[in-house]
Amino acid sequence: MDLAIGIDIGGTKTKIGFVDIEGNCLIHTFFRTRNHPDLDDYLDQIVKTIRQLESEMPEEINFLGCGIGAPNASSRDGTIVHASNLKWKGVVPILDKFRTRLPMPMKITNDANAAALGEMLFGVAKDMTDFIVITLGTGFGAGIVANGQLITGYDGFAGELGHVDMTIGDGRLTGQNVRGGLEAYVSATGLKRTILFMQSKYMDDSRFRSIAYNDLHGEDITQAAAEGDPIALKAFDFTAQILGLAMANFTAFSQPEAFILMGGLVNSGKWILDPLHRYFEEYLLEVYKGKVKILLSGLPGKTTAISGAAALIWTDKLQDY
Amino acid sequence: MDLAIGIDIGGTKTKIGFVDIEGNCLIHTFFRTRNHPDLDDYLDQIVKTIRQLESEMPEEINFLGCGIGAPNASSRDGTIVHASNLKWKGVVPILDKFRTRLPMPMKITNDANAAALGEMLFGVAKDMTDFIVITLGTGFGAGIVANGQLITGYDGFAGELGHVDMTIGDGRLTGQNVRGGLEAYVSATGLKRTILFMQSKYMDDSRFRSIAYNDLHGEDITQAAAEGDPIALKAFDFTAQILGLAMANFTAFSQPEAFILMGGLVNSGKWILDPLHRYFEEYLLEVYKGKVKILLSGLPGKTTAISGAAALIWTDKLQDY
Repeated sequence: MDLAIGIDIGGTKTKIGFVDIEGNCLIHTFFRTRNHPDLDDYLDQIVKTIRQLESEMPEEINFLGCGIGAPNASSRDGTIVHASNLKWKGVVPILDKFRTRLPMPMKITNDANAAALGEMLFGVAKDMTDFIVITLGTGFGAGIVANGQLITGYDGFAGELGHVDMTIGDGRLTGQNVRGGLEAYVSATGLKRTILFMQSKYMDDSRFRSIAYNDLHGEDITQAAAEGDPIALKAFDFTAQILGLAMANFTAFSQPEAFILMGGLVNSGKWILDPLHRYFEEYLLEVYKGKVKILLSGLPGKTTAISGAAALIWTDKLQDY
Repeated sequence: MDLAIGIDIGGTKTKIGFVDIEGNCLIHTFFRTRNHPDLDDYLDQIVKTIRQLESEMPEEINFLGCGIGAPNASSRDGTIVHASNLKWKGVVPILDKFRTRLPMPMKITNDANAAALGEMLFGVAKDMTDFIVITLGTGFGAGIVANGQLITGYDGFAGELGHVDMTIGDGRLTGQNVRGGLEAYVSATGLKRTILFMQSKYMDDSRFRSIAYNDLHGEDITQAAAEGDPIALKAFDFTAQILGLAMANFTAFSQPEAFILMGGLVNSGKWILDPLHRYFEEYLLEVYKGKVKILLSGLPGKTTAISGAAALIWTDKLQDY
């Protein structure tokens, strides 16, 4: 049977799976990225994992190719560039190195672009030509589709919306003390920082008064909001306000039919989504009001990233079927 | 000879000209838009003007079509929608009405999109697939090209970048008391407002201390900057800072190879462009630094808008030549 390999390279986990023509991930597994700081060793581990999965499949497989999603990946050069969440530094020519180990068609793009392709091929964006996927995980990623095509930019680095700055240089900084942009507010880490900020700004009682930053977890904040904790509620409201304004601004750029949200922050459900809907509509320019949907990913949660990466291969093959 | 008609509908002037295959505007004229508040009368005036120009041409013309650039134009519906600088209110079905008077292929898009097409076909973006045109006139317009295509959006209203808000709802308002966004800062009007703001913020001596808002003109501000007026210099610096940050943000969206600037504010030359270059590079994300050009329009000044509008027609025809 014809299958595409999908690989999602994340700072914590490397997920690998085999994906069929409908986007179903038939088999998948993962290993810890950080256990393989040496790139050659890491790529060997990927190949080993693929062979292992292959041996577990009941039928003979015809691999159509291998799609990879990774942070800071350049689709044009096949490289990963200065990815702050990965151990390999500088410009990593990952595709060239990987091709010598696994001779098949191979493509790479950043993880959010892969997710956008996945949604267009297999998910809720099947009939859309203009939409934006936003991944709200440890960081903030975006994959933009306009005129039915992924926007990759002059150099393969379009869609870095997590680094948009709406504070005229006066906002939060990153660990490297450079301007953090949107991601420093709207992400799992950003939400934790906002829990601190709200405690600094208001004197409300809160369970977080006795929890240190390093002990804070996203689920605790959702739980606290459900129990009416005023600091948690203010933090979600503030996060939703900034995301709502950012999405209203993005709308003025490419006027998408929909935003498709995915990632850990979305698991906070109505605490983030209810105020987000409200702020987004409020901030939208008149000509866009009521016309732009906010949707959740249509791909199965655990294998979204794998199916998205495999979509890099399927998108070229689909016309042959 | 084969020519396309280009029409630029502006709040003040309606410009009409005939454009050849190389983007040259062979003949052109204008009339005052506001003299024709009645739409039917206005469209009759356009046809009359076209016939007049035709009679002045030495050779027989084969009209390939008519392209129109107008504020708030929807390319999809052929309408002009809630254009604040025009007298006709609501949704104006201008293309349908015009077609009955002038039976030829006809297209409309917003003026900045027309300018972008013009630059791609005839100007400095001839070899580019990813660039953004910014028009800095009375207002702020943008035409975005990615993957070699104009981004029009789900509904034909992409590229309304003048309405991007970077102040979390705390910025300048429009005449209708709604949030003004970028345009309220970066435009001819925005610069005048900033002259007031800088006088309120600083106590520097300035020629503007004795000029009222209604008597302020863009050329005066340029002149004052050239003479070292501290308020004028601060106003240009502030305008350039906001535009530089906005352009850095736009880069994170579609990673253009270049921004192409045009419109009245560009006539202020180095007073706006020098600080703009500096702020833009400062605010650019690391992966983009040194890679994004700032260019000035490559179309002849007085007929840029006409050639851009005519490009709507030529873009479809060029492959036949």
